[in-house]
Amino acid sequence: MLANQSLLLDLYELTMAQCYFFYKRESYATFDLFVRDFPARRSYLVAAGLGDILDFVTNLRFGSEDIRFLEGLHKFKPEFLDWLRNFKFSGDIWAMPEGTVFFPNEPIIRVTAPLIEAQLLESFFLNTINLQTMIASKAARIVSAAQGRQVFDFSFRRTHGPEAGLKVARACYIAGCAATSNVLASKLYGIPAVGTMAHSFVMSFSKELASFDAYANNFPDQTILLVDTYDTYKGIFNAIKVGLSLQKKGFQLKGIRLDSGDIVRLSKFARKKLDAAGLHYVKIVASGNLDEFKIAELINHKAQVDSFGVGTNMGTSSDAPCLDVIYKLCEVSDANKNFLPTMKLSKGKVTFPGRKQVYRFRDKQGRFIKDILVLEREQLKGEPLLIKVVEKGRLIYSPLSLADIRQKLNASLANFPKELFSLSARYNYPVLISSRLKGLMQNLIGQLAKRQ
Amino acid sequence: MLANQSLLLDLYELTMAQCYFFYKRESYATFDLFVRDFPARRSYLVAAGLGDILDFVTNLRFGSEDIRFLEGLHKFKPEFLDWLRNFKFSGDIWAMPEGTVFFPNEPIIRVTAPLIEAQLLESFFLNTINLQTMIASKAARIVSAAQGRQVFDFSFRRTHGPEAGLKVARACYIAGCAATSNVLASKLYGIPAVGTMAHSFVMSFSKELASFDAYANNFPDQTILLVDTYDTYKGIFNAIKVGLSLQKKGFQLKGIRLDSGDIVRLSKFARKKLDAAGLHYVKIVASGNLDEFKIAELINHKAQVDSFGVGTNMGTSSDAPCLDVIYKLCEVSDANKNFLPTMKLSKGKVTFPGRKQVYRFRDKQGRFIKDILVLEREQLKGEPLLIKVVEKGRLIYSPLSLADIRQKLNASLANFPKELFSLSARYNYPVLISSRLKGLMQNLIGQLAKRQ
Repeated sequence: MLANQSLLLDLYELTMAQCYFFYKRESYATFDLFVRDFPARRSYLVAAGLGDILDFVTNLRFGSEDIRFLEGLHKFKPEFLDWLRNFKFSGDIWAMPEGTVFFPNEPIIRVTAPLIEAQLLESFFLNTINLQTMIASKAARIVSAAQGRQVFDFSFRRTHGPEAGLKVARACYIAGCAATSNVLASKLYGIPAVGTMAHSFVMSFSKELASFDAYANNFPDQTILLVDTYDTYKGIFNAIKVGLSLQKKGFQLKGIRLDSGDIVRLSKFARKKLDAAGLHYVKIVASGNLDEFKIAELINHKAQVDSFGVGTNMGTSSDAPCLDVIYKLCEVSDANKNFLPTMKLSKGKVTFPGRKQVYRFRDKQGRFIKDILVLEREQLKGEPLLIKVVEKGRLIYSPLSLADIRQKLNASLANFPKELFSLSARYNYPVLISSRLKGLMQNLIGQLAKRQ
Repeated sequence: MLANQSLLLDLYELTMAQCYFFYKRESYATFDLFVRDFPARRSYLVAAGLGDILDFVTNLRFGSEDIRFLEGLHKFKPEFLDWLRNFKFSGDIWAMPEGTVFFPNEPIIRVTAPLIEAQLLESFFLNTINLQTMIASKAARIVSAAQGRQVFDFSFRRTHGPEAGLKVARACYIAGCAATSNVLASKLYGIPAVGTMAHSFVMSFSKELASFDAYANNFPDQTILLVDTYDTYKGIFNAIKVGLSLQKKGFQLKGIRLDSGDIVRLSKFARKKLDAAGLHYVKIVASGNLDEFKIAELINHKAQVDSFGVGTNMGTSSDAPCLDVIYKLCEVSDANKNFLPTMKLSKGKVTFPGRKQVYRFRDKQGRFIKDILVLEREQLKGEPLLIKVVEKGRLIYSPLSLADIRQKLNASLANFPKELFSLSARYNYPVLISSRLKGLMQNLIGQLAKRQ
């Protein structure tokens, strides 16, 4: 976390807030945060980032240094800056807990607060949910493609900065990754740390075998040998030598890593030779520009791989490095707190008006069959996905532990239709709109035309 | 910047370091940080991130809390942890200053240090250079496509986390962007802040015109009106009303923003109507999922746009959200400080051995014509691109101001061949290899085969 978060917003949030200060000070509003269109190959997303959102909103203050900076922009009036100096969020927030599976147009965060306050949250909320949800969702695909084999997060060197590296490691762990290479993430979040060795390590010794021995002597029961620095076949035989020598001393070589070449062929060769040498327990780790498609292909071709080290493609969600995540006004009140629902009409950008809830329904076997987007006052029998997390500015929610979020997601995914997990074909899980919500929209369309 | 940076590394850097501690404590090494293959549509990259690198390396210490965490992993030996407790980088670093244009395989950072120390820098160096260089390079393309029109960084809501948002704003400014929407980046780096208004602002009023008036009354000489919330044509006429009313009071409406629809047609219409109303000075800002290709197309079709607000595609480098940036061992010494060059031979991953420098050459008109990659001891007449920034662990370099970096890059780009700026065709700027470096490689290939 950055030390000073208060000015982490787009300038227009502040200029609009000043207008609200003078013109709509008494207005309340509800904003929905949701993802409109999903990236081409995503059939579901996994909510993540709520913890940071709650931390931000409950601690947001504008200090004297911030105010001085804003004064220096020569845009803001003293009365507004005084208001900002005393800012403390006073509204309500409803949200889907981290690890919730969700679909297009479903609000994952809903803010009801004085309009001026709700506006100031937009930039940080979008930024935070975008990154963490995008990565958790990408990692979930990769974990799913690995079909029970371990996935390690090796992405730190290519994430968008150090802080992104930490959030990525956490999001990947939520999605089911077994461990991370990122030491600080391991420390901060209690995620198991994992590592092997680099090509430079092997190259820094005059013989490959000497480098393997040095590592094995230092970490006799935790060694994963990188075997492709020179000739991979010879590297595998050198690893077997080290494995046998460790075995004599009562230790077990943990694994070998293949980082290049024909992983299908090399892994089959390695497995055969390792087994023939009695090293059945030695695992094979594959790495090198992997993603869910390459993992699926390796498994399809019966590659003998026990664990996948995945970096760049997971840590940047490289095929879809952003989400169409938006924060939209869905109702606004006059000074008498009469709430008027509103919606956006632009082509392809229509939004849903009013304060809403999402219900998820199961069949008799407990499998999820549909969601319904409804107005809040409608009471349905399914499971409501949005829960109240902040009331009158006060946190009233204890976030789940990381382990619980991870476990909950895993259990939940098992209950969705199999088609949801196709890597390339989009499956449209049914998200229905209640008839009352539809009715409200039809009424509004006529009214909104009169606003110009 | 995160408060605690020391454990921002991959676990294997530490496990390898422990091996070096016991086996290669006296070894020195040189590592090159460079980009091997460029993304498909990049003909040049712009170096950025050196400031953070220098901050990291000169302040890197392992505190008692870090050491306790590492002890708890039950991997590390007490002697190594003692060494780590007293760690302070003692080596030399050469680097290309921020804003330097560079090409594939050219080292942009070169570290010569005890092997064990150089290894510990890898993860952070790669992470930091990857993000900042990738974004500066993407933004340079976008600025170039805008052909002198202003480009605003509107990306904060989609950057990979808050810290990435700050670094992105800075990198975009280096590349020539005129301003950022990110208030904290404006404060930290002195970048001009810019903003307009959101659709929710317009929607929160019962009439579009009322929302425009409210904003214009608050910011009479700094108002940019968003005109596409409802019918854009009507929105333009409402903006003209506000512009004329401001004019009567002695102010100038600053601009209108088009965020959707047919920007070519809408901008021509708006320009015509604004001019007919005597509002020649009102600028037209376009936004909405822009990138260098869309900007080029708009300009090609004579869209009447003065400024482009660019978000997601710039802030995530969406068509290439990572670089193939690597940190490779190029020489290593024995205990007597005899340096032995080394290289990687894997197919498609060959690296260049030895301690190297890059020289850039101009023709008589001052235009850049080629670079030559040479061994450090070779002295050529061109301009050496790597300069010494850290000596025996001590910073000996004063980074340029952000304004100077920006200006230097702009001047430098003007001297490269025009073909470099094609948006879609790759231009291979000549990067030659000196004959001595080629000779060294040929000698090494034979020797390296004996390492297994």
